[in-house]
Amino acid sequence: MRIPELAPLRNDDLAAALSAAIDNKTKPLGSLGRLEALARQIGLIQGTVTPSIDSPSILVFAGDHGVVAEGVSAYPQEVTWQMVENFLAGGAAINVFARQNGCAIGVVDAGVNHHFGERAGLVNRKVGPGTRNFAHEAAMTPGECALALEHGMDLARSLPGNVVGFGEMGIGNTTAAAALMHKLAGIPVADCVGAGTGLTPEGVSHKQAVIEAAVAKHAGVDEPLAVLATFGGFEIAMMAGAMLQAGALRKVLLIDGFIVTSALLVAARLQPAILDYCVFAHCSNEQGHRQMLACLEAQPLLQLDLRLGEGTGSALALPLLHAAVNFLAEMATFSSAQVSTRSD
Amino acid sequence: MRIPELAPLRNDDLAAALSAAIDNKTKPLGSLGRLEALARQIGLIQGTVTPSIDSPSILVFAGDHGVVAEGVSAYPQEVTWQMVENFLAGGAAINVFARQNGCAIGVVDAGVNHHFGERAGLVNRKVGPGTRNFAHEAAMTPGECALALEHGMDLARSLPGNVVGFGEMGIGNTTAAAALMHKLAGIPVADCVGAGTGLTPEGVSHKQAVIEAAVAKHAGVDEPLAVLATFGGFEIAMMAGAMLQAGALRKVLLIDGFIVTSALLVAARLQPAILDYCVFAHCSNEQGHRQMLACLEAQPLLQLDLRLGEGTGSALALPLLHAAVNFLAEMATFSSAQVSTRSD
Repeated sequence: MRIPELAPLRNDDLAAALSAAIDNKTKPLGSLGRLEALARQIGLIQGTVTPSIDSPSILVFAGDHGVVAEGVSAYPQEVTWQMVENFLAGGAAINVFARQNGCAIGVVDAGVNHHFGERAGLVNRKVGPGTRNFAHEAAMTPGECALALEHGMDLARSLPGNVVGFGEMGIGNTTAAAALMHKLAGIPVADCVGAGTGLTPEGVSHKQAVIEAAVAKHAGVDEPLAVLATFGGFEIAMMAGAMLQAGALRKVLLIDGFIVTSALLVAARLQPAILDYCVFAHCSNEQGHRQMLACLEAQPLLQLDLRLGEGTGSALALPLLHAAVNFLAEMATFSSAQVSTRSD
Repeated sequence: MRIPELAPLRNDDLAAALSAAIDNKTKPLGSLGRLEALARQIGLIQGTVTPSIDSPSILVFAGDHGVVAEGVSAYPQEVTWQMVENFLAGGAAINVFARQNGCAIGVVDAGVNHHFGERAGLVNRKVGPGTRNFAHEAAMTPGECALALEHGMDLARSLPGNVVGFGEMGIGNTTAAAALMHKLAGIPVADCVGAGTGLTPEGVSHKQAVIEAAVAKHAGVDEPLAVLATFGGFEIAMMAGAMLQAGALRKVLLIDGFIVTSALLVAARLQPAILDYCVFAHCSNEQGHRQMLACLEAQPLLQLDLRLGEGTGSALALPLLHAAVNFLAEMATFSSAQVSTRSD
């Protein structure tokens, strides 16, 4: 397996040209705030002063987690496959928001503990019927982890557009993501653990204890791919692979949610320049997510207290990406509109 | 002039029915965060468990301000009419964002210091060629203020849809809005004054001194309509009138920006229940805006560091309103999708 290489986005001439184009629009200097930074970033990623959003899509990766045997989730494991069926039927939140905002979604079975058979609309990349229970053994073998990463890279190569968002579904995956965060960002387990889909305070304490025991059991596992294989999930590894490949193809990566961001932590440890290609869609109320984003120096576009994953934050942020490229393309300049500039 | 009466939104049965419908969707309880609150609010405003967003529009009110003679703006007064021309030509930020998000805009000459003549697309409600300089005398006569309010009410009655956003353009209007905020919210002038379209620190100090002197000159003016007439603008008064009437017609009011919110301060002093009908679109970096929103206990949907007015925040927030009504209309329920509920 070869990890794609990503170069940092350094192009002073293009950055200056983008800033000049933005500053010449009929508005007070800097007054479009975060949208101006977004237009500059998308321009740099695409290598042009006329960036565009073409055929955006969100890949929703589903996988199951052996660690659910430890009682770390408020919902039973069967909800993973049931929600995959819901995605395929068009009835989940991500379907609604993606449809509304003109975004395609691809539903990927990365490793769900269920036999779907041949299903229209379901991309079958099943590495296995869920990971092993990392309370007792590594979640994946190195080979399974590499296969998941490669599937992700392959899927990223097949995408038609220039913007890709990431979503996930997997009962138990906040537990995996919290363990990854602890290991890769060096943040205490207590600060990485939250209520997930709705644990009680006792449930949160138990989840923390399960992770702390597992971390102690797997002491010495520190290299990013080994951490991913030990604590991660098939959907998390597949997202990390897709992110790396999509960045290498100079696509805009839309990142939201605790689990998606944990996959990015892995990708960023392998290729730090990937962060230049990321637009952070949403900051959830899950405290671990806030700390994870702070660790990446990320400033998400939205703060809507969402906590359901699926890529919903990315679908909801998409109109802001359109707004960024649209103002750059469509607004008049001071000279074209014959508007006076500042008097000082 | 009769101010429309607004009743608080109290309907416990409907609120319970909306909550039940939201909680039964295939997602963890409460996991759509602010969108759930938004769906409930829009449902209560429209009096239905199946709320919708129909023919949304943004009214952009333009007016000039006599107080610009005191040197309170970084841009010359002619920019007001030049930007109105830009709105009519479709080249301003609000045009771009409204077009993108399927929102009509209406451009209203509330009192610009310019003779436009008959212009397609421009709604002529000119009360006068700009207000008087409130450093020396009241900005409006009581009759002019009442006329502006009535024009606003009349315009609100003519809107086809059930969502209306408010935008404005008027060189000098952050000075008027800061004075209104000081008088109506009781916040010290220093905390109400910001850089507007881009004043230097010296410019901000001068603006503050101009307002403080004017407040001293007009001491004893405290009743909301008198405050509006003394310090306000034609566009601000017209917005306040439109807000009151649109609320009475049970439309959703989209509020963003420092000047729009100053108009709402006036409306809320006249009819406090109007706040139940308001969705706050955006919190700007202008410190006065943050304090004004805090005073209204408002939690805006977006924080994008915008500071150009025009209703841009409202246009950008519109997809989130669609998302709120869409998830309620389109998401599957646990039973319809045969998804298991919590195990505890």
